[in-house]
Amino acid sequence: MKVVLAQLNYTIGDFKGNSEKIIDQIKSAKTHGADLVVFSELSVTGYYPNDLLEKKEFIRKAGVAVSEIAANCIGVAAIIGAPKINENERGKQLFNSAFFLADGEIKSIHKKTLLPTYDIFDEYRHFEPNRDFEIVEYKGEKIAITICEDLWDELPTESEFGKDKLYQISPMEELSKLNPDFVVNISASPFSYNQEGWRKNMLISKAQNYKTPIFYVNQVGAQTELIFDGGSVFINENGDIIKELGYFNEDSLLVDTKQVGAKQLQRPTGTTEKIHDALVLGIRDYFKKMGFKKATLGLSGGIDSAVVVALAVRALGAENVRVLLLPSKYSSDHSIDDARELAENLNIRYDIVNIQSAVDRFEQELAPLFEGRKPDVTEENIQARTRGIYMMAISNKFGHILLNTTNKSESAVGYGTLYGDMNGGLAVLGDVYKLEVYRLARFINRDGEIIPENTIVKPPSAELRPDQKDTDSLPEYEELDEMLFNYIELNKSPKEIAALGFDETVVRRVIRMVNMNEYKRFQAAPILRVSSKAFGFGRKMPLVAKY
Amino acid sequence: MKVVLAQLNYTIGDFKGNSEKIIDQIKSAKTHGADLVVFSELSVTGYYPNDLLEKKEFIRKAGVAVSEIAANCIGVAAIIGAPKINENERGKQLFNSAFFLADGEIKSIHKKTLLPTYDIFDEYRHFEPNRDFEIVEYKGEKIAITICEDLWDELPTESEFGKDKLYQISPMEELSKLNPDFVVNISASPFSYNQEGWRKNMLISKAQNYKTPIFYVNQVGAQTELIFDGGSVFINENGDIIKELGYFNEDSLLVDTKQVGAKQLQRPTGTTEKIHDALVLGIRDYFKKMGFKKATLGLSGGIDSAVVVALAVRALGAENVRVLLLPSKYSSDHSIDDARELAENLNIRYDIVNIQSAVDRFEQELAPLFEGRKPDVTEENIQARTRGIYMMAISNKFGHILLNTTNKSESAVGYGTLYGDMNGGLAVLGDVYKLEVYRLARFINRDGEIIPENTIVKPPSAELRPDQKDTDSLPEYEELDEMLFNYIELNKSPKEIAALGFDETVVRRVIRMVNMNEYKRFQAAPILRVSSKAFGFGRKMPLVAKY
Repeated sequence: MKVVLAQLNYTIGDFKGNSEKIIDQIKSAKTHGADLVVFSELSVTGYYPNDLLEKKEFIRKAGVAVSEIAANCIGVAAIIGAPKINENERGKQLFNSAFFLADGEIKSIHKKTLLPTYDIFDEYRHFEPNRDFEIVEYKGEKIAITICEDLWDELPTESEFGKDKLYQISPMEELSKLNPDFVVNISASPFSYNQEGWRKNMLISKAQNYKTPIFYVNQVGAQTELIFDGGSVFINENGDIIKELGYFNEDSLLVDTKQVGAKQLQRPTGTTEKIHDALVLGIRDYFKKMGFKKATLGLSGGIDSAVVVALAVRALGAENVRVLLLPSKYSSDHSIDDARELAENLNIRYDIVNIQSAVDRFEQELAPLFEGRKPDVTEENIQARTRGIYMMAISNKFGHILLNTTNKSESAVGYGTLYGDMNGGLAVLGDVYKLEVYRLARFINRDGEIIPENTIVKPPSAELRPDQKDTDSLPEYEELDEMLFNYIELNKSPKEIAALGFDETVVRRVIRMVNMNEYKRFQAAPILRVSSKAFGFGRKMPLVAKY
Repeated sequence: MKVVLAQLNYTIGDFKGNSEKIIDQIKSAKTHGADLVVFSELSVTGYYPNDLLEKKEFIRKAGVAVSEIAANCIGVAAIIGAPKINENERGKQLFNSAFFLADGEIKSIHKKTLLPTYDIFDEYRHFEPNRDFEIVEYKGEKIAITICEDLWDELPTESEFGKDKLYQISPMEELSKLNPDFVVNISASPFSYNQEGWRKNMLISKAQNYKTPIFYVNQVGAQTELIFDGGSVFINENGDIIKELGYFNEDSLLVDTKQVGAKQLQRPTGTTEKIHDALVLGIRDYFKKMGFKKATLGLSGGIDSAVVVALAVRALGAENVRVLLLPSKYSSDHSIDDARELAENLNIRYDIVNIQSAVDRFEQELAPLFEGRKPDVTEENIQARTRGIYMMAISNKFGHILLNTTNKSESAVGYGTLYGDMNGGLAVLGDVYKLEVYRLARFINRDGEIIPENTIVKPPSAELRPDQKDTDSLPEYEELDEMLFNYIELNKSPKEIAALGFDETVVRRVIRMVNMNEYKRFQAAPILRVSSKAFGFGRKMPLVAKY
């Protein structure tokens, strides 16, 4: 059988656009002699529509789109993903479903059994789990259709609780009893740099265990925070990956199960390159899907804004990026020089606005109220918020989205000013620890200096008071990042983290900073997720708690 | 049997404080001759700990607290709520459990069967559903122990999809086969003004259906956004509510099942009074549990800030509330007079800072960049953000939490400035439509004028340009609020809303404003929830979508 893996980039709720993409692919596959085209999970709606699924009109429109796509499946079959109303008396309103389309109609509907409800996933909110298992027979082949998590009945993760089987049943166990010739898995599995390999290993082990080839089709493209990386594969019954589609871009490939041919794999890439490509896609799709073209941000001369502006130029083009340099009396000369050099290297428009006169005005007006009080964080925040006003004025006046430059280390410990440097429509580095920001800078400079060397080598500082350095109030980033990773990604206790070789007092102080600053992160911009545990809706911590 | 309903206010993760409260209540009940004391759902941890449940140390500490409480149950039994590790090979890590404590030890553990995973609830994220049903025999009585949703196997809500049975099984159906003498339900059910009556009706129907008395114990107190109203009850086997505990305060009551005595019910109150009391509790608990005492906000002379400051004074005391009046060149004289009069009526400290000189400074600095461009929303936002800087300066310098005054109508249509008047640690009115804000103002003035009459009767305006009125860009609030309620709370389609008697073009424009402004609400302060569908984590909409 000739099967096309169709790895596309959908927009949530764009039934017209998504259907057109799907139908175009079906038509093209047909002209190439394909028997079957496989699309990703919830391809008709885009993954994940969330509470739009509670709107009956949304479900109705998805149904109309499925019928339209089915009408185009003449002489070629397709598997697409869409919600289906639960007609039973009991249970949630919908099933997360795969539709098998052929002969211009819906031939069968296959419902998802395992509904992930952890981290960023929340499928049990909207869907009822499947309990029936059926196989499709098409052109003499028996096809087992599964949806994403259906293959993940065993967790490869080291859980704090030591449990690796989250679910009561294994769909593959059930389906394998029906002797499928191959398995199709339609998926929407987001990128995370520290879960690399898990996905492939799981697919390989399933193919080997059940001695069945697997067609795995993943979504590609960013949906606000989530970046789906694609990387769809065909794996043979020995567990060998024979075909592999591109990462971070749309791709498709015809595989003839009778004549599989030679291996076609992607060039291996390092973690930093993957994160780089993920962030570029994240920025590009956010703007495109929002209907915006232009970005702005403030360049401080520091590493974070330097990396963000380079990524933005890569994603949107130099002509669509405009920056401000916003020095104060505490800004060092080299900061302005470095920022200017960076803007010139990137060939983007920059303007310089000195914030000092506005800051002075605030301080003068507040002087009577602040009489007898010493300068403290209040005055530092006034500077950051004054910069925020200038940046938002550019954003408002010219229709540029402000990019936020906070990194994950800062965000974790609350090292940033709400309504100041925490402003922005999208936080590009909010899931990237500081040390990885440096690696990104080196990667960006791999073919020549874009980010000035001085920006990379100088000690990090917010420059909100004379001679301020990040390490005045924080441990060195080498230490801090490791503590944070163990607390945030791995859920380790203070004692366990200290046992890795850190001073327990410092560990407890850092963890206290993380916990105390939930209130700031609550109001932070959406963060492009690249790790297994990003701040945002995948990490739900009570704001008010004594713990 | 003598049963004490113990309706207490817990702090999430405060094992020491929560245990002490529980043990005090057990000791006091014992001295009053009680046989059994019933506490609310997850009383040991506070409801809802969310992803703290993923930390093994958190679960361990909860276990230690349960043992300590059990040790105090000698000569008296207790039912408390806490998480319990799932020891089975498969499934989620934990059970949401009720512990029956007697003779100084844990006698039995009863696990929750129905795990709500809709709106603000997310229990399937952390818990495995129960499948076993057992009854407790104690002092010759058979007790069926259930946890909150376990009684809610039928939804009273009008679902868009017409389905009223969310779950596959009914715990009461199973437990009733074991012939309990009475049912205990430990609960954590938050207040929502438009679901009033549902809870009682459900309890009444269950008592009647199974001809069994019910002890229902609810949590009281606010946990950031969620306000638990208490209102615990004892209902006899005929479905008569015989005893009812207080609303929005801690309360407890001993009920002798052999001698139930006369009805003891709470004074009936209207919706506006309930919302008022809910918001006061919401503010008070947020500050208390955060470890703060003092609030600040800006008084504009308008109705929203007037209602918020009155609620804040009620919650925290006049001595703990301090305000700024922040006029600009567009502020009318009456605005300043009204704000001043209000501050004087409430006897709180106020200062006046004119924002114009800072605003002028921004405009002058930006003039070269804005050359040839007309004034637009940019300049309006600069005013709102300048006010934001002054408010946050007071907050930072004096340790006051800034209260946000945005109402639900404004929040819905995005009528507010990010990093300006959207600033604040807590949004007091974010779930209160504008018309209800007026009713709250009248309620606050019920015994004499606190909020100046002029503030209540004048047309609403943001005063960001000359002669601006809300109705310049929005329908009248009588119309707007009804459209919004039908879209947000009831999930109606534009056509269905227009069919209620509105111009469909206006309806579509309003809905478009709601959808377009998800990005603003994403960064908004946490909102005290009083309705069945508040903005925030109970309403998950994709930020980037074409729908």
